[in-house]
Amino acid sequence: MSDQKVILTGDRPTGALHLGHYVGSLKSRVELQHEYKQYIMIADAQALTDNAKTPEKVRENVLEVALDYLACGIDPKLSTIFIQSQLPQLPELTQFYLNLVTWNRLKHNPTVKQEISQKGFGESVPAGFMTYPISQAADITAFKASLVPVGEDQLPMIEQTNEIVRNFNRIYKCRVLWTCKAHIPKVGRLPGIDGHAKMSKSLDNGIYLKDDEDLLRKKVKKMYTDPNHLRVEDPGQVEGNPVFIYLDAFGHDTKKIQELKDHYQRGGLGDMVVKNYLFEVLNEFLEPIRKKRKQLENDKSEVMSILKAGSEFAANTAQKTLDEVKQAMKLNYFG
Amino acid sequence: MSDQKVILTGDRPTGALHLGHYVGSLKSRVELQHEYKQYIMIADAQALTDNAKTPEKVRENVLEVALDYLACGIDPKLSTIFIQSQLPQLPELTQFYLNLVTWNRLKHNPTVKQEISQKGFGESVPAGFMTYPISQAADITAFKASLVPVGEDQLPMIEQTNEIVRNFNRIYKCRVLWTCKAHIPKVGRLPGIDGHAKMSKSLDNGIYLKDDEDLLRKKVKKMYTDPNHLRVEDPGQVEGNPVFIYLDAFGHDTKKIQELKDHYQRGGLGDMVVKNYLFEVLNEFLEPIRKKRKQLENDKSEVMSILKAGSEFAANTAQKTLDEVKQAMKLNYFG
Repeated sequence: MSDQKVILTGDRPTGALHLGHYVGSLKSRVELQHEYKQYIMIADAQALTDNAKTPEKVRENVLEVALDYLACGIDPKLSTIFIQSQLPQLPELTQFYLNLVTWNRLKHNPTVKQEISQKGFGESVPAGFMTYPISQAADITAFKASLVPVGEDQLPMIEQTNEIVRNFNRIYKCRVLWTCKAHIPKVGRLPGIDGHAKMSKSLDNGIYLKDDEDLLRKKVKKMYTDPNHLRVEDPGQVEGNPVFIYLDAFGHDTKKIQELKDHYQRGGLGDMVVKNYLFEVLNEFLEPIRKKRKQLENDKSEVMSILKAGSEFAANTAQKTLDEVKQAMKLNYFG
Repeated sequence: MSDQKVILTGDRPTGALHLGHYVGSLKSRVELQHEYKQYIMIADAQALTDNAKTPEKVRENVLEVALDYLACGIDPKLSTIFIQSQLPQLPELTQFYLNLVTWNRLKHNPTVKQEISQKGFGESVPAGFMTYPISQAADITAFKASLVPVGEDQLPMIEQTNEIVRNFNRIYKCRVLWTCKAHIPKVGRLPGIDGHAKMSKSLDNGIYLKDDEDLLRKKVKKMYTDPNHLRVEDPGQVEGNPVFIYLDAFGHDTKKIQELKDHYQRGGLGDMVVKNYLFEVLNEFLEPIRKKRKQLENDKSEVMSILKAGSEFAANTAQKTLDEVKQAMKLNYFG
């Protein structure tokens, strides 16, 4: 393996990607792909851990997510985009790592506990969902990733991975697996258009990379702003106001944005004026992405070729790690 | 897949095989291989679920078990002997099945619960051990086995497998997976030479297929018999007496065995006389097995070739099932 540092990142294909994804991860991936060897995993197998009954949803969204990646500037020459389920090496590694983690440890993973409660699983949580931190350790270690971009709530996952790495290397007296570090993006989250702290598919409060001009206009128009800013002449609040948060995230004309903020805070600036400007800003940002996406949608076989080549390349890397793992475990019977 | 009925069976490679294995499973495998397509799995991956820290033990015993199989009459032309860890298809299937079983269901598997208590795992049971019934479902279904030889205590495993099969076929609207039936051998268990109900490595009370004449003589000599048969002239008990149970299992001269039993029960027959005869019977049974085993030990590369070819053949069969499974789950992205 080369000395280039490796990133493992990705998304569960349960929906198309939105501006929240862009701010939270896509943007930094587009930047980091020049510096790092970046593996971007479309985590269909992981998505199935709590979508086992709707595989068609997962299947469809694999393509959606891939289209979004390519449209927003992930370059398959720099980044390896692959489909998780196409790498048998990952469940093979998972199988071995499952023996290094106690049942008790799994039960007390804070991230999983919180997710179980959010999803209302209770006792009927699928075993695959409970064990997905181990499968994630396989994803990360297969590529000897040193950096894994995650939200703060995912830090226990990184901890679990490094615990497995240390246990494996100690038990099998080797240095095959590498520990990794979490990379927490500076701009964490973009609020939803309804003002909810998180933009998410399930809350139906997102602006998607593929939204057309009309839909974008509608969504911006109905955006939540300062609920106390009832009359134009009233002073409005800028802090925590999604419209201004979006402007800060996507606008380039910082001088103009500052002027708008000042005016809004003084009073005399209507929400619609700010929203019209935000629409322009977002539309300018989304237009080239939409155009690239349309073009790719008309050549899906090209996209599938990229995913196939990426999956083959990733499988090749993962196989090297798996071979080392099996050798360390003395499971290399046939040389 | 041909219409020939399929058996999936096997052993965890944690020690060489003994007479208990022969009576409980090897004997019927040697018979059944003419009637069924028989896959015999050396379950190294499963053995690692509670031997993760001693992989060299598992590794060494893969060869030991293979030698025992071949020495006692498993014919690689009729039966496919393979090493579990060499089939990536099995953890791939496991990964998907884990999503169809709730955590709660896993926790309450009676066989696993009993084993956890026997092994004194408590809360520190490895996650891989807790989930091994799912991995076993993968082993069975990968070959579309209709018959699985198990002890009575393993019946919940078959139930769990069939539950997964029914769930899978229902959820993914297909008939890809096949249910199986348990095959419970008539002669269940051979007691240990210490009189314990079960012959087992951990109790150190077994006679091994590879034991030489001297060791066999010693073991038979110290066998537990009727503890109340103190003097030769006393009547002795035949029922539950390991020496007679072994004679019934391995002797051919039923008339002579009956005479010995009658004499023992009347009194006047010393243990040593019966034991000397048992030694002869067992030695006659083991001699050709030992001879074949010696010959194979001198040509280990031949044994490894058999395991390699078997693993490749088995992987091929399992891959067909996995392809069908992935198609049913719509994970067949690249045709």
